[in-house]
Amino acid sequence: MDGPTIILVEPQLPENIGMVARAMANFGLFKLRLVNPREKFPNEKARAAASKADHVINNTQVFCKLCDAIADLNYVIGTTARKRYSFKTVKSAVEATRTLRHHENIGHKTGILFGRERWGLENDEISLVDEIVTFPVNPAFASLNIAQAVLIMSYEWMKSGLENTDDTAFRAEEIKPVDKATLHGFLSQLEEALDIRGYFRPKERKEVMITNIRSVFTQAHFGESEVRLLRGIISSLDHFSPKFPRGSGAPIGRDRKKCEY
Amino acid sequence: MDGPTIILVEPQLPENIGMVARAMANFGLFKLRLVNPREKFPNEKARAAASKADHVINNTQVFCKLCDAIADLNYVIGTTARKRYSFKTVKSAVEATRTLRHHENIGHKTGILFGRERWGLENDEISLVDEIVTFPVNPAFASLNIAQAVLIMSYEWMKSGLENTDDTAFRAEEIKPVDKATLHGFLSQLEEALDIRGYFRPKERKEVMITNIRSVFTQAHFGESEVRLLRGIISSLDHFSPKFPRGSGAPIGRDRKKCEY
Repeated sequence: MDGPTIILVEPQLPENIGMVARAMANFGLFKLRLVNPREKFPNEKARAAASKADHVINNTQVFCKLCDAIADLNYVIGTTARKRYSFKTVKSAVEATRTLRHHENIGHKTGILFGRERWGLENDEISLVDEIVTFPVNPAFASLNIAQAVLIMSYEWMKSGLENTDDTAFRAEEIKPVDKATLHGFLSQLEEALDIRGYFRPKERKEVMITNIRSVFTQAHFGESEVRLLRGIISSLDHFSPKFPRGSGAPIGRDRKKCEY
Repeated sequence: MDGPTIILVEPQLPENIGMVARAMANFGLFKLRLVNPREKFPNEKARAAASKADHVINNTQVFCKLCDAIADLNYVIGTTARKRYSFKTVKSAVEATRTLRHHENIGHKTGILFGRERWGLENDEISLVDEIVTFPVNPAFASLNIAQAVLIMSYEWMKSGLENTDDTAFRAEEIKPVDKATLHGFLSQLEEALDIRGYFRPKERKEVMITNIRSVFTQAHFGESEVRLLRGIISSLDHFSPKFPRGSGAPIGRDRKKCEY
């Protein structure tokens, strides 16, 4: 699936065309059309701003008239920040890209229209689109530029194709909480090391203090390698304590036996 | 609620700082911190690129060290495009902003960390964040710049506060499909105007043809003013037809009586 064609109506700055191409490429779109751009195209400033989205810039088509730029498309939406059109359905970017993907999935050719930097789309241009999309910008400061608007639509387009929008390209290695025997081995090591130093005072409090320690370390859901790291920390503190200098005490717990100091 | 603080680690170009401020302002964020920016700040290039997001630029705080920049925060997420860290939970922008909003809702101070333009965040910086967020970029062309990344996080932050992400700042006047009597009044007008011109030929097909016309105009869910527009079109065509010049036929349907020609 190609994804929607991005159509810029009378873009003024070539830099913006380049940034649009880059935003598209980031999210897998590549079909760009310009209607009557102010500066000649192809344009070196546009190419520089596209920062290596050359495949988009090279295939950009230029038209004199909007109706020609959308002639072969079946479903076209227009972006606007201003409320002013009465008949059209207005959708959020999420809902609009869902609609576009539905059309693309069944072989319809779709497009998204973006207006001029200064004043967006004219009413007669909006009259040609099937639906309107608008963004939830802060009304007190609504100055989304053209490349930002294209970025958000491209981003939502990419998301509309994910089975689950919470999916990410990579995950942490899924951390499996260690089995309880390993966790409790660590807790025993810790508790013994503390006990030998008189941490559990007064004695009546010992049970509560142990309960708290166990809670803290259990609810962190540590994995295998994290518990190994913690055991290393405890072993290290246990050995080099000024109060119990290296080799001064009997080995405590399993890990002590492995140490080579 | 203030929303998360945006923290840029060693930003290189003041223009990017400005574009970040603008992206934040568009979606209602305003707390910006810089860690060790390459160029002196405040900076006129940054202000120009912020295009009137002066309230963000004026309140931007500058720190020498990352740990100072996040010292008062309770929950910090870091953005990265690269898979490389093992212990951290990785979330999508949608899920991460949902988490941030949960923390903000209960009075926790949150932040979002963005790395340098060239190589993002260092591993030791990532080790200080609670979670990682990453974007569903096209793996073949992943070069989201810092202002784009901030834009997407700010946009998702704004969306995470909407009751329904399909909500838009404005809607078309909700078009109520006209009542069927009005629709059928229009259909009668149309059918009569066509009938008088011999449109329904051969006669045996008339019923099917009428059924088709009714289907087409019924499934469009036209509202009051749309039907009025359509009646006007039909009246006009009906009057000025070369075959039936003005005034040549008897008035047909209700609207004919209103005409003043």
